[in-house]
Amino acid sequence: MPDQTSHKPSVDGLRADARENRDRILRAARDAFGVQGIDVPVAAIARRAGVGVATLYRRFPTRASLVTEAFAEELRHCVSVLDDGLADPDPWRGFCTVIEKVCLMQAADRGFTQAFLTEFPGQAEFALERARAEENLALLVQRAKDAGGLREDFEPSDVTLLLLANCGVTVGSGEEAATASRRLAAYLLQAFRAETATALPAPARLDLRRIGEQ
Amino acid sequence: MPDQTSHKPSVDGLRADARENRDRILRAARDAFGVQGIDVPVAAIARRAGVGVATLYRRFPTRASLVTEAFAEELRHCVSVLDDGLADPDPWRGFCTVIEKVCLMQAADRGFTQAFLTEFPGQAEFALERARAEENLALLVQRAKDAGGLREDFEPSDVTLLLLANCGVTVGSGEEAATASRRLAAYLLQAFRAETATALPAPARLDLRRIGEQ
Repeated sequence: MPDQTSHKPSVDGLRADARENRDRILRAARDAFGVQGIDVPVAAIARRAGVGVATLYRRFPTRASLVTEAFAEELRHCVSVLDDGLADPDPWRGFCTVIEKVCLMQAADRGFTQAFLTEFPGQAEFALERARAEENLALLVQRAKDAGGLREDFEPSDVTLLLLANCGVTVGSGEEAATASRRLAAYLLQAFRAETATALPAPARLDLRRIGEQ
Repeated sequence: MPDQTSHKPSVDGLRADARENRDRILRAARDAFGVQGIDVPVAAIARRAGVGVATLYRRFPTRASLVTEAFAEELRHCVSVLDDGLADPDPWRGFCTVIEKVCLMQAADRGFTQAFLTEFPGQAEFALERARAEENLALLVQRAKDAGGLREDFEPSDVTLLLLANCGVTVGSGEEAATASRRLAAYLLQAFRAETATALPAPARLDLRRIGEQ
């Protein structure tokens, strides 16, 4: 996609060339995080962006600032997916849609889920959005249970289990990862239905934060 | 477990100290493969075993010979799990038992599944065992479908999907990985039941070999 904004007059106090550098760094960071995870060396991102390491550090003094800026749009999308799910008059359908969409987001960009769930000291806004997303998810789970769609013995940790499993199947290229993710999510959503539930072994003690450690 | 065999008189032409070295290398290799995968540098295995790299190479001239020897016992176990599953008069129960056991084997030792599914040139015996295991699995799937237990739209690639998903959830320590694996396998087996099947999206084109590339 050609960058439509970099040649317009500056609106945020950056000169056009500085802005172009910034956009290039963020694109390179998203690509690198997606392939290698968010621990990829900053030097590798600078190389990918075609800028010097000093330029990168001037713009993004910490890894946290780079990660949160790189994923700002995905974060907003994730929050809106949850809001849409909660707004669905059928909570079970809302729950299924959220699970399917989040799995596809993870398939398309494994770096994002990892970024979203990693604790960055000093990134209060990111942490707040995450806390809100987790509360909304817990609310959606409860409503889906109350409506009789989701099985009673579904545990919050099962969301983590699903995301970890999804992370395992989304190893290939884009379309292949999406196909595997869709199939896995469909199987698991069938298993999560209240009407077909039979006894389960004990839930795993898996905090959502676990995904960030992958 | 203390090594009971290393001080007995040699039965396979190796002197006691050579035998001890060999056992120590195989234990170190299993540990290293389990943690870091089968691509771990040979030097790291030698270091872990407390032997020189030259000693290791004298005993195991190729990585393939080291991998196949290290996993010989697990391979036999895996083959016998499949044989037991096929011998079960209830094919659906046989299928479930195989899936549960293989998932737990993978949870206990991620290196083994990877080793089992990686092609090693010149390791004909390993390749033969693997081919036999895959045939037996395909036979078990067909019988479980014919008996009405397994859903008709279950695809061979769904076994790979399950093993990749299981690989994703078995990231923690031993007991934690086993708990997560049991929960995931139980959910998926409920989703695989013919009686609760509803429409699924297209299967992923996932060859079993894919696990070896993890």
